[in-house]
This record gives sequence, C-alpha cells and structure tokens, in this order.
Amino acid sequence: MTNINLEEVPTAAILLIGNEILSGRTQDTNLSFIAKNLGDMGIDLLEVRVVPDDEAAIIEGVNALRKKYTYLFTTGGIGFTHDDITTACVAKAFNRPLEVNDEMMTILEKYYGDRFNEARRRMALVPEGVNLIENPVSGAPTYQIENVFVLAGMPSVMKGMFETLKPRLQRGPKVLSSSVKCYLTEGVLADELENIQNKYPSVSLGSYPFYLTPPEVGTVLVARGRNKVDVAKVTHELIELIRRLGGTPEVECQ
Amino acid sequence: MTNINLEEVPTAAILLIGNEILSGRTQDTNLSFIAKNLGDMGIDLLEVRVVPDDEAAIIEGVNALRKKYTYLFTTGGIGFTHDDITTACVAKAFNRPLEVNDEMMTILEKYYGDRFNEARRRMALVPEGVNLIENPVSGAPTYQIENVFVLAGMPSVMKGMFETLKPRLQRGPKVLSSSVKCYLTEGVLADELENIQNKYPSVSLGSYPFYLTPPEVGTVLVARGRNKVDVAKVTHELIELIRRLGGTPEVECQ
Repeated sequence: MTNINLEEVPTAAILLIGNEILSGRTQDTNLSFIAKNLGDMGIDLLEVRVVPDDEAAIIEGVNALRKKYTYLFTTGGIGFTHDDITTACVAKAFNRPLEVNDEMMTILEKYYGDRFNEARRRMALVPEGVNLIENPVSGAPTYQIENVFVLAGMPSVMKGMFETLKPRLQRGPKVLSSSVKCYLTEGVLADELENIQNKYPSVSLGSYPFYLTPPEVGTVLVARGRNKVDVAKVTHELIELIRRLGGTPEVECQ
Repeated sequence: MTNINLEEVPTAAILLIGNEILSGRTQDTNLSFIAKNLGDMGIDLLEVRVVPDDEAAIIEGVNALRKKYTYLFTTGGIGFTHDDITTACVAKAFNRPLEVNDEMMTILEKYYGDRFNEARRRMALVPEGVNLIENPVSGAPTYQIENVFVLAGMPSVMKGMFETLKPRLQRGPKVLSSSVKCYLTEGVLADELENIQNKYPSVSLGSYPFYLTPPEVGTVLVARGRNKVDVAKVTHELIELIRRLGGTPEVECQ
C-alpha cells in the first residue's frame, strides 16, 4: 500500500435527473448509496449534478461528466411515460440513433406478459450498441453506454441495478477511513488539526462540529486515505491530541 | 395570473461543498430544504452540484453557477479549520482579496467572549465588499457576495441563515402544485397522461410510480405550474382519468 499510483484510481460522477428532486418533493437518497458503494470499491466520486427533466440540461450534464470521469451514473427518467426523457437525451448526447433492442424486448415481453402494451414497449427503444443492465427488482432492464450507466430513480430499483453492474467496474485501491468523536469544540482543536494534516498529505482530514442539545457539542474528526499506515498514524495522533486536551476520544474504523 | 412573463422568474442553483457528502458519510438534507423554500418564493431551482473540498472544483462550480442563474447558494466549508476552504475559493472566484471584516469581527468577539481565539478569528477574514448574513443559531455570521449566498453546511445553522437572507431575494410568481395518487400502474395511464401534458404546456406533469409491498403498487401524478387555472384543469382531468380507469384518486393541493 505504500506505492499507490493515483493516476490509476478510477473516478466517477453522478447525474441525478428529475424535477421532483429540484422541487424538494423528493429527498434524494441515491447519491449516498452510490457514494458508499463506490468508496468500498476504491472509486473516487468527484462530482454530482442534479438537473431537471429538461433536454438541454440533461444532454449538457451527460456530456460534461462522461468526458471528465472514468464512470458516470445517471438516475431517473427511464420509464415509459411522457416525462421520462433520459434515454432520448442520452442518445442525443452520444449522437446515436434510438433502435429497438431485441434482447430488451424479449425480457420485457416475458416480464409483463399480458400487460405488455404499446406504452411499455417504448422502453425497448434505446441507443444503438448498449449493454443491458439487469433489473432484479422490477423487471425492466436498463443499459450501459460506453462509460455511462443509466439507472432508475426509484431507490429500491436503482440499488438492484447497481448490484448487477458492479462486476463491470474497475476497482481502485480501497479508501480507508477512521472517525474519532469527542466533546471538544473545533475552536480548541483547529491549530493542531492543521499541523496533523500538513504532516500527512496522503490523508484527507475532515473536521465536523456537532451541536445536539447544548451542552452536547463536539467534533467528529474523519481521516480518509489509501495509505493504511498514514491513516493509522493520523488516527493515533488524533487520539493523543484529544486526550492531551482533556477529552475522551471515541474511535470507529472502517 | 394569466400573463406570466417567464423571463422575470428568478432562477437559482445550489453548490453543496464537502467530501463528507461525496463519501456517503453524510446524507445531505440541505438541498430539499432550500428547494422547498425557493419554490414557495416562486424562484426556480434549476441546478445543483456537489463538489469536494477542492479549490479548483469549488472555484469552477461557483463561477459556472453564479453566471448562469439569478442566485447561487453554497453550503459547507465555512468554518475555521484547515478543511474549510470555501471562503478562500469564493474570493478567488470573484478575484477579490480577503480582508478582515470589522462588522464580522465585532459580532464574533461578542459571541465567543473569552473563547475568541486565533483560530476563530480567521472567520472574520472574508472577501472585500460583502454583506453579512446573520446566524441566529450558532453566532458566527456568513455573507452574501453579489448574487452568491455563502451558507453553513450544518442543516440547523443553514436553516437559520436562510431565514435571515430571505428578504433579500426577489420573489417570482408562485408555483402551484397538486398531486393525485392512485393505485393504477403507469402502464395503463401513460398514453392519456401524454395527451393531458400536450394539452396544457404551461403545466409540468410528472408521473412517479411506487411499489411498496406488492400488490400495493400505484402512481403519484404531480402537476406544477404558475397558471392557476391550468393546474386546476389538469388536476380535474387526472381525477376524471383515474375514475374512468376504475381507480380512486387521492388529491392533495399546495
């Protein structure tokens, strides 16, 4: 773990598509699910964008993010109602025609049976040359197009799809993290935290204050990095610092 | 309400700043709070981005979004620990020097009293020419710079700040919305929904399927728009459609 080539670490972005997120009607939870899973696989999630069900905004988001990162995951807008425009936009972003995907059609026919109508048939119309992504939750598959994974917006369905696509992702060296909680304020910790951060540049040291019901105030310190030895050293220094200042460190490692 | 000039509708974006969101450690809730409040004020939230605590990413996000929308709200990274780099980045984005803000210093001195140390003093160093935003929750103010509102990441603190800045925002004509829930699947509704959408272009009609524990499956239909009469007409047509298909519509208006 001492010689990590950061250029080999895969990167990722997420494009959350949907008016319902931007209106505040829906509280998104897909971001944190995908984020945690990518972290476990050693893939760096570096950007997320949320855009409305608007053709220009979706095309711009897809093209900006797919070119900048190893992987792009989109969520939302892939059903067969009039407001599901993700697939048409993805096709335009890649400048590829939409075509009836025979494999998709076979799966949909089998899943819907008698309920397979004209509206549902529209789901088989996808950009040319995609790889399907199985949907173990609600039947209708979705697809991967180059480095873009087009996923459902509904969290339970998205999760199922994500599990099936995982083996296609290149893993990176895992990010290790530890968190140390204490009931000291950031004000007394700040200068020493900066010294520790400067001493271990391979570790990202985050400081998150909390105020529950005062006087329950304190700070959670999070050390994240790919160098196991350095993450352990930082964790150790944080514990020592908190003890020296009269606090009681509560440690969690992952 | 019949002649709405959409060019006069203020627009907004949010830039959520923080490694903890992109690692999945923290579930963001600031987006939906700000989104709902902007909606109530008739301001269209059109884009959200999430970036890490990284100088280049923050500067790029601030500059892209502040130029594109009427207002930009940032959350996170405004404390005084080494990982709080938002203020330095905002200054660079605007190409303005950081300076000690006397008004800020006075408020901080009063709030912290004996606990006002060198680390906390760093919070008074803000870009030249800002307007402070009062913090009724935890004392330390933040600031507005041109059309950018720099807010805390901690939800309780952010909410307090948002309340104090509200009077500075130009309101637009309010967006009205209704939602009609039914236990019919999208498959039987899809074609008629498209017809209704095409008939009322001023209304944005969203269709959101749900599967709880089957057989409890159904669809929530959401109509949003600034034309009160059209939103009412769409709602009426949705109710009629659901009844015609043998369903029982459950209506909610806002």
